[in-house]
Amino acid sequence: MSSTDDWVNALQARAERALEKTLPPANNPPKRLHEAMRYAVLGGGKRLRPLLTYSAGIALGVSEAVLDAPASAVELIHAYSLVHDDLPSMDNDSLRRGHPTCHKAFGETTALLAGDALQALAFRTLAEPTSAIPAKNQINMLELLAEAAGSRGMAGGQAIDLDSVGVQLTLSEMETMHRLKTGALIRASVLLGAWCHPEITQDTLENLDRFAQCIGLAFQIQDDVLDVESDTATLGKPQGSDKAQDKPTYPSLLGLTQAKARAQSLLEDARQTLRAIDAPTEHLEWLADFIVKRRH
Amino acid sequence: MSSTDDWVNALQARAERALEKTLPPANNPPKRLHEAMRYAVLGGGKRLRPLLTYSAGIALGVSEAVLDAPASAVELIHAYSLVHDDLPSMDNDSLRRGHPTCHKAFGETTALLAGDALQALAFRTLAEPTSAIPAKNQINMLELLAEAAGSRGMAGGQAIDLDSVGVQLTLSEMETMHRLKTGALIRASVLLGAWCHPEITQDTLENLDRFAQCIGLAFQIQDDVLDVESDTATLGKPQGSDKAQDKPTYPSLLGLTQAKARAQSLLEDARQTLRAIDAPTEHLEWLADFIVKRRH
Repeated sequence: MSSTDDWVNALQARAERALEKTLPPANNPPKRLHEAMRYAVLGGGKRLRPLLTYSAGIALGVSEAVLDAPASAVELIHAYSLVHDDLPSMDNDSLRRGHPTCHKAFGETTALLAGDALQALAFRTLAEPTSAIPAKNQINMLELLAEAAGSRGMAGGQAIDLDSVGVQLTLSEMETMHRLKTGALIRASVLLGAWCHPEITQDTLENLDRFAQCIGLAFQIQDDVLDVESDTATLGKPQGSDKAQDKPTYPSLLGLTQAKARAQSLLEDARQTLRAIDAPTEHLEWLADFIVKRRH
Repeated sequence: MSSTDDWVNALQARAERALEKTLPPANNPPKRLHEAMRYAVLGGGKRLRPLLTYSAGIALGVSEAVLDAPASAVELIHAYSLVHDDLPSMDNDSLRRGHPTCHKAFGETTALLAGDALQALAFRTLAEPTSAIPAKNQINMLELLAEAAGSRGMAGGQAIDLDSVGVQLTLSEMETMHRLKTGALIRASVLLGAWCHPEITQDTLENLDRFAQCIGLAFQIQDDVLDVESDTATLGKPQGSDKAQDKPTYPSLLGLTQAKARAQSLLEDARQTLRAIDAPTEHLEWLADFIVKRRH
């Protein structure tokens, strides 16, 4: 992200501090497990999901301190999913963000358990008693995150993705897969920020929901476009890896031009939806823009 | 369990029905993932953890219907841990309760994701909005289960256990491992039942906590004793497998006679603690007895 976007840098740093505090210290037993958990979470990543949680909450007037827990929770779920994705029985990846993947650094059993423990920690973090959020909202937030992570969310999307290699999916089937695999957690990231507001209205929730669904899909289309267009160095993974793996993508189903147009139109829908919310949503708009315009 | 214990059979059947309703239908997509989740949970097991949840709640006057959600949640956590334990990178087991393990039946990637999704489903189930439990209690329950499942609970105990093969542990180190690996979820199972009572007292919670810690440890000692004493057919796993794997056990550290005496003394402590609770706790006492006297 550009260095002129001070608020982004500030919130990324805030997310990092919140995660650092939420994760068990590395010198607490079981040390190796805690080291692996910290290795998998800290010191990297765009923190897109926490940024969405903070930005949605801040737009509605929620304090940053209240948003630390949900922002950390969504990133912990994301981090655990990356650890398990990288395992030999899944994508069998050796590098992530230029560093050895968790199982390469700590071994497979520790990585498996670290992923499991990160998922539990996400719910532990979101269930921390607080007087700032009404208890009923907090329960809704826990339910939302659990739904987004489970078989009708992220884990379900992963399962469909793995079963779809070499299979001819329709556009609608592929969208269902992405809606679950990446869309559900992006949606939860936005809505958890909103639920922190004690008097959140149904109307605002619905608009934010629509916004989140647009950017979730746009995120995936841009991922597919980058896989075709970017060089390997910028991308941090082998360029063209989707095609090599025979995975269905937006460019392969729609063509590259149409895929880009689709992302742009989703961005327009997202912006439109924000305008219906009576709150300063410029951070959310910036993030929507970033998702479609990023180069990696 | 003996066929004369009608209430046990009734509650086991109730747990089965509750789990069956909680799990996504097998014909809902992603079908293969949902089939694997159902395979891993339904149709087997003693349902000890749900029995503890039901029994603790019933003793305090909570209705069985209210206890279905927490009873299912603890079993879902237990079931997910078995699926991941059995994976090739962990214990690499091919059989569980006489049937192929989840990864043998569905493949490694589906089993990994099924475990992940079962953990999410446990929290999803416990976060279901309900008017029967005060929201603050429900949040405490979610926090308790997340703590019991995570790195300072079950997953942490697993990590210590895996690191302890071939290592000389002290009795106290081994107890810490078991307190996390099996004790934390047994403790949560009892306390979740109690937290369903809208006016649960600190005193009752403390007594039930002590009870749960006694039976959790007794459960593990009996496991170790059975590994030495039972034949393979009764046990359902190779007899002597702890010794073969060079794992520290109660009999290896204390001797068989002392290990049995320790289990008996924990059972006495557990019974004593129940007598301090002003409620009909005979189901809990029966379960404590069962834990120490079971032959498999």
